[in-house]
Amino acid sequence: MSWQFDDETTLTPTGESRFTTELASAWSIGENLNGGYLLAPLLKAMTGISGHPHPLTVTTHFLRPGRGGAAEIEVEPIRSGRTIGTVRGRLSQGGKTKLESIAAFTDLVTEPGLLEIGIEPVDLPPPDECVNRRSLDQGVVLPLMDRVEMRVHPDHAVAGHGGEPEIAGWIRFTDKRPIDPLGLTMFADAFPPPLFSKLGFIGWVPTIELTVHVRRVPVQGWIRGHFKTSETTGNRTIEDGVLWDESGAVVAQARQVGLILQGAPS
Amino acid sequence: MSWQFDDETTLTPTGESRFTTELASAWSIGENLNGGYLLAPLLKAMTGISGHPHPLTVTTHFLRPGRGGAAEIEVEPIRSGRTIGTVRGRLSQGGKTKLESIAAFTDLVTEPGLLEIGIEPVDLPPPDECVNRRSLDQGVVLPLMDRVEMRVHPDHAVAGHGGEPEIAGWIRFTDKRPIDPLGLTMFADAFPPPLFSKLGFIGWVPTIELTVHVRRVPVQGWIRGHFKTSETTGNRTIEDGVLWDESGAVVAQARQVGLILQGAPS
Repeated sequence: MSWQFDDETTLTPTGESRFTTELASAWSIGENLNGGYLLAPLLKAMTGISGHPHPLTVTTHFLRPGRGGAAEIEVEPIRSGRTIGTVRGRLSQGGKTKLESIAAFTDLVTEPGLLEIGIEPVDLPPPDECVNRRSLDQGVVLPLMDRVEMRVHPDHAVAGHGGEPEIAGWIRFTDKRPIDPLGLTMFADAFPPPLFSKLGFIGWVPTIELTVHVRRVPVQGWIRGHFKTSETTGNRTIEDGVLWDESGAVVAQARQVGLILQGAPS
Repeated sequence: MSWQFDDETTLTPTGESRFTTELASAWSIGENLNGGYLLAPLLKAMTGISGHPHPLTVTTHFLRPGRGGAAEIEVEPIRSGRTIGTVRGRLSQGGKTKLESIAAFTDLVTEPGLLEIGIEPVDLPPPDECVNRRSLDQGVVLPLMDRVEMRVHPDHAVAGHGGEPEIAGWIRFTDKRPIDPLGLTMFADAFPPPLFSKLGFIGWVPTIELTVHVRRVPVQGWIRGHFKTSETTGNRTIEDGVLWDESGAVVAQARQVGLILQGAPS
């Protein structure tokens, strides 16, 4: 079986700790590649040298927008421990750094701990009663919706409704590729900015930095997500997200800081 | 005027993008240096080459515990933009990497934005009605309390009280050094693990990764902090923190992932 997400993030080794990949513009929002997709081949390469199977915490700085075409990847192991492996990496296109990332890896399959504290899943109607994101006007073309299927809470599906700056919805790969921790890191950056839900398409909210904490290997099915703007000051905004699997367990948490740039994307 | 935090984090340049510093064991918790203090000279060096005055988002991986004595620092500019500068850095002792960090810098002094969303300050009695952390038994010696003064909410001052895994309190430098964004990044890692508040001294909760988002330059006075364990699965725990200044404005947010290791620290 061949899956789009894997076929379109393949790595070709070109030297010690160096790879190239061919990015597919199918994963775009407007002109630019989705950040979670752009991260995927880099995170694959980083996982490969980490000595551990799963990302635990992944911080990425988004330096410049990514486009379809060739990209160069460079990774560096920082520490290889028995429980945790730490790696940094960089993805470039045409000699310009697009992403700089640091991540710790572990084996997420563990025994129950001393104390389990969960987060109650966000309230969300079943996927069939939610709104397909493809049918929403978001002010840009969304080729990404051919790769990722998203069903948005009906209350959050009207841009500029003036309610809370939040968005809840279901997400999965369009070709139903199984969801693993790498897929979760992509989904953690695939929801529309919650500020749009409140204010409408006020402009552009480029991510400066995104940290994703993967918590569990998910059971298969839809992933439930909830993203909200937790705090905004000046033109700097913080967005918090949680992803759950169909068992109701938290599978990832995400936080990002972005800039609010009013007007058309440049 | 000379302040302990500045005197004990001085940098000596030793080459292009290289420095040494002399770490003071006065900033220890038990045998090991506090992580926020360990980060301070590294973040100073990173700020210096960023082209901007303030850290906006700082991610640090804690690879090995730090001890008093000499440390080597190496920094690398990643991107210098008009609004944002991105830098990575590494702090080592005796040839072993202790910290690996990546941060984005900006000028935090800005005009009001399109939308201001704050976080209500945590409820906390005035400092004089809180418990001095120095008087709490935390299972380790706390030289750090000669450098940083902390007053803990009376409800959270009994380890193992079995309530919520949270801790609220006031914090400032003991010598009343003014609090700037660098000081905030130190305070974001200075509170005891909220799990201890609930469960008692169950062992050791080493931080794998900590991300601090600085939100504002604080007005001077005490800083109010609230740290809670938001989610725990297996031996992996996520802790969320917020810091406010005396005006009630959020000045920093922090999230870290740690391991719960039962028994004595090794």
